[in-house]
Amino acid sequence: MSVTHPQGFLAAGVAAGLKSSGAKDVALVVNSGPRFDAAHVFTANRCQANPVLWSKEVAKDGVVRAVVLNSGGANCYTGPEGFQTTHATAERVAGHLGIGAGDVVVCSTGLIGLLNDRDVLLAGVDAVVGALAPAGGDDAAHAIMTTDTVAKQVVVEGDGWSIGAMAKGAGMLAPALATMLVVITTDAVVPAADLDKALRAATRVSFDRLDSDGCMSTNDTVSLLASGASGIAPSLEEFTALLADACQDLALQLLADAEGADHSIAITTVNAAHEDEAVEVSRSVARSNLFKAAIFGKDPNWGRILASVGTTQAAFDPADLDVALNGVWVCRGSAPAEDPSAISLEDRDVTVTIDLKAGSASATVWTNDLTLAYVHENSAYSS
Amino acid sequence: MSVTHPQGFLAAGVAAGLKSSGAKDVALVVNSGPRFDAAHVFTANRCQANPVLWSKEVAKDGVVRAVVLNSGGANCYTGPEGFQTTHATAERVAGHLGIGAGDVVVCSTGLIGLLNDRDVLLAGVDAVVGALAPAGGDDAAHAIMTTDTVAKQVVVEGDGWSIGAMAKGAGMLAPALATMLVVITTDAVVPAADLDKALRAATRVSFDRLDSDGCMSTNDTVSLLASGASGIAPSLEEFTALLADACQDLALQLLADAEGADHSIAITTVNAAHEDEAVEVSRSVARSNLFKAAIFGKDPNWGRILASVGTTQAAFDPADLDVALNGVWVCRGSAPAEDPSAISLEDRDVTVTIDLKAGSASATVWTNDLTLAYVHENSAYSS
Repeated sequence: MSVTHPQGFLAAGVAAGLKSSGAKDVALVVNSGPRFDAAHVFTANRCQANPVLWSKEVAKDGVVRAVVLNSGGANCYTGPEGFQTTHATAERVAGHLGIGAGDVVVCSTGLIGLLNDRDVLLAGVDAVVGALAPAGGDDAAHAIMTTDTVAKQVVVEGDGWSIGAMAKGAGMLAPALATMLVVITTDAVVPAADLDKALRAATRVSFDRLDSDGCMSTNDTVSLLASGASGIAPSLEEFTALLADACQDLALQLLADAEGADHSIAITTVNAAHEDEAVEVSRSVARSNLFKAAIFGKDPNWGRILASVGTTQAAFDPADLDVALNGVWVCRGSAPAEDPSAISLEDRDVTVTIDLKAGSASATVWTNDLTLAYVHENSAYSS
Repeated sequence: MSVTHPQGFLAAGVAAGLKSSGAKDVALVVNSGPRFDAAHVFTANRCQANPVLWSKEVAKDGVVRAVVLNSGGANCYTGPEGFQTTHATAERVAGHLGIGAGDVVVCSTGLIGLLNDRDVLLAGVDAVVGALAPAGGDDAAHAIMTTDTVAKQVVVEGDGWSIGAMAKGAGMLAPALATMLVVITTDAVVPAADLDKALRAATRVSFDRLDSDGCMSTNDTVSLLASGASGIAPSLEEFTALLADACQDLALQLLADAEGADHSIAITTVNAAHEDEAVEVSRSVARSNLFKAAIFGKDPNWGRILASVGTTQAAFDPADLDVALNGVWVCRGSAPAEDPSAISLEDRDVTVTIDLKAGSASATVWTNDLTLAYVHENSAYSS
């Protein structure tokens, strides 16, 4: 269900033949109204895929009526030919639905530098329009998967309105948007300007703090569409809170399905001078291959945590840091404390806590361990 | 030979029992003079090991007479007890040699958070002093190895003077000093202030551009000792050039022996607006796990190069980037160009060239691929 759970949305997912596996690879989500408010967040990467270049323009006026997505090719660094493919995709959707191409967001995911066959893609668009259904969200969620092993979907309920969302993403997950495509729908009445505020607030504490492998994608897109079909206008605070819940739920689903990962690691920095510094410290640990390999090996090697903390500019006294692994304070005052051998790293979920003793701000960044399977999977992706 | 190749130096390496393998683990390099000029570079990590805290003070006056080094424990985050061990080590060396402890640099390498047995270490100091010899450089180079599979040494000859050097380092190699200990000796007559200038210039274009795994160490030390025993005073330019040669040679030896690596990758950014931006762009690619895993898989997945370039703030037009892999220009004007399937990635050495078309500066950063063996080795380091 997910994106078709809120009233006023149709969706579908079909197999167009872009994926050699024959799995579903073209998805469409259509807002039937009565309102067409929208807000978007795109990758911060300066090297952006053609669909991102297109969709940023489409998103500017806060009105979007459909999102078409394909897996099986990122359409990034494919030159003018690739941009024309994106444009033609939006035009084809618009033609079928009787709307303007300028109201159609396009998302693509897959290999960079690969030019998809335009005819195959457009035939997929024809098929997915024909398959649109009030319960098509699940098919759509499956059609955007790449190396994902499960579809990611979530529904949260407001008072007479709801939010539904789907996401894909398993590698290239970092920072300022994990590599991913996300479509979020709601039947609440929320003007585009408020949607934008709510979306930025929600992504800042969810997707932006997911840093699975430190690699920022060229295609990240989060598309939030509001149909207003419930007729109910929640307060901005209420809407933002539920939206953040939905985004965080999806972020943790992405974390749980990250390529080859054995562990989901929550790195929380506490008592920082500023929230930004807490994020910086947590992210530095999330980026340490040595730390991440140790967690894969179930090795409570906390020295690698401190070595990462020391690369940051955050306020702290290097001689007075405390570090806990799964709640065991293995380091106090920058010296060995509780016995690390008491720590079990058998479970998937691992927590790291770093106490900077420099203020009262805190933040969590989520990452995965660095595993043999991650290297194996990513050493043979395009071939 | 290496550090004992220039006149005026003694060295030794012995097995003290810090390493469970029974391999050599304590090394000593002594400058016999007549001059005792020295210059040092230390890790930029704010979390610094006890020997670094000690040695930074020792190095301040530009006079150093001996460097004592141990493997089998980094003596980092070991608290006041660990600092006392460092202090006692310097005192013991000084007592034997009849010099001041304030002229003895101490270096340690191995696991962070592990407190070495002080008595074992000090007995090793006694033994290594007894073993000092004019040809002891090779033993010293072996005694500082950790996960290194070969000792790293180099000799470069000036006109009547020379430089000898040894290095260790195989993991935690990055940035602003690859994780490593390096001792460089010369019998040239070079005042400490000039040594400092030369060393900073040489490390800037060698060790500072080695970024094997993105992890900055807590213990990095480069110690440059000048005995003046040749009686020859080369120009600063001449000395700096040969010193840079020696440092670059060692850096490439470190690269060639990096933990688990199958490939040594030179990432060169050309036509950048500034050298700093060329370094930033090359380093961003060196930090991409996805790119590094692809090279391990011999997969010419150039999209991952562009995805990394796009995370930087360097001047370039995202729509007009050229990228070559092993000299094959797979991307021109940000679109696919030559056929990537023509590229062989069988050899250890791989080159990446990124043309930013934004100026005339260039820089190379060296890295390794991300391999199954790297993950395996680093997931079981402390246990």
